[in-house]
Amino acid sequence: MSITTTTKPAAAVIQNGVNVTALFDTIEAVKREPAIAGFQFRAANSWLGGGRNRSTIKGFRGAGREDDARLQPFTLDADEPAVLLGEDRAATPVEFVLHALASCLTTTMVYHAAARGIAIESVDSTLEGDLDLRGFLGLSAEVRKGYQQIRVRMRVKTTASSEQLTVLSKFSPVYDIVSNSVPVDVVIETSAP
Amino acid sequence: MSITTTTKPAAAVIQNGVNVTALFDTIEAVKREPAIAGFQFRAANSWLGGGRNRSTIKGFRGAGREDDARLQPFTLDADEPAVLLGEDRAATPVEFVLHALASCLTTTMVYHAAARGIAIESVDSTLEGDLDLRGFLGLSAEVRKGYQQIRVRMRVKTTASSEQLTVLSKFSPVYDIVSNSVPVDVVIETSAP
Repeated sequence: MSITTTTKPAAAVIQNGVNVTALFDTIEAVKREPAIAGFQFRAANSWLGGGRNRSTIKGFRGAGREDDARLQPFTLDADEPAVLLGEDRAATPVEFVLHALASCLTTTMVYHAAARGIAIESVDSTLEGDLDLRGFLGLSAEVRKGYQQIRVRMRVKTTASSEQLTVLSKFSPVYDIVSNSVPVDVVIETSAP
Repeated sequence: MSITTTTKPAAAVIQNGVNVTALFDTIEAVKREPAIAGFQFRAANSWLGGGRNRSTIKGFRGAGREDDARLQPFTLDADEPAVLLGEDRAATPVEFVLHALASCLTTTMVYHAAARGIAIESVDSTLEGDLDLRGFLGLSAEVRKGYQQIRVRMRVKTTASSEQLTVLSKFSPVYDIVSNSVPVDVVIETSAP
């Protein structure tokens, strides 16, 4: 009997491309020390003129420390189409909401299915969001500014039931953010040009 | 006197890079025919394995018709960092929410300022979102899955007051989406692999 044999790690269990061994390790670590579950995500944005602006996303805090694994920031542009007086060089802010929602529902479903041993072969989704521009334009106090309704249709190749996958997908943070309310504190500082 | 002289359009008024003449034309058109204010934005997303997926965003309906001005779709990837068991090839879904919020607050402030003749020279913002992973992991029914709080700090070079800009920025559709609740209908269809 050698110490190398007894300390050799078991092969990680991978399901749906997710390292389930690491996922359960994370869950056990959070159960032991709930404070490490606290994450802070960040973005910095600069206006580029007209309807164009650019975010840079790099650092975040999580697992009890400042995460420094990202060496380069992710750069994300936003713009408006011509009908909304932009140059159409990037997706609009409200389209980014649909991307965030689609990606979060998908990842959440895949991770939670993996933790339960449910194999998923493919996930494809389409999203539609209805928005009445009178809210943004301030033309009607009865019309809200954001989406009035979002419809998500997901098609999943799996042996699991749609009922079970629906329950799993609703662990999604972005589903919670959009379908419930988040306190948003906006502070604007001005300086003379 | 020639007909070309009398039908020559007046030079468009541009403020903050926004065509204010076109903006007021839009407002007048919506007042005459409110139905053209109805927009539908869309996204399609496919899972790429593990925490990775990709959205394509192209068509939308607005101004009373299907907009076909976009010739190529915008492609947006999402991923998770290593600490969340991903490959860190793209921003996370919850970081996309911060980008959507930053870009929408900025564009909304700039457009509404332009309509009021307020010159803006620069806008820079930083955003922070607090998220407790116990919600996503299903480890506590008391902890919500999404952001518990989002803080936005905007620095604007302008002669306008921060109070006025705060009012203008809150016409933002994504601010409304995040700070209030949107009905989200999720339908999942399954098929055997």
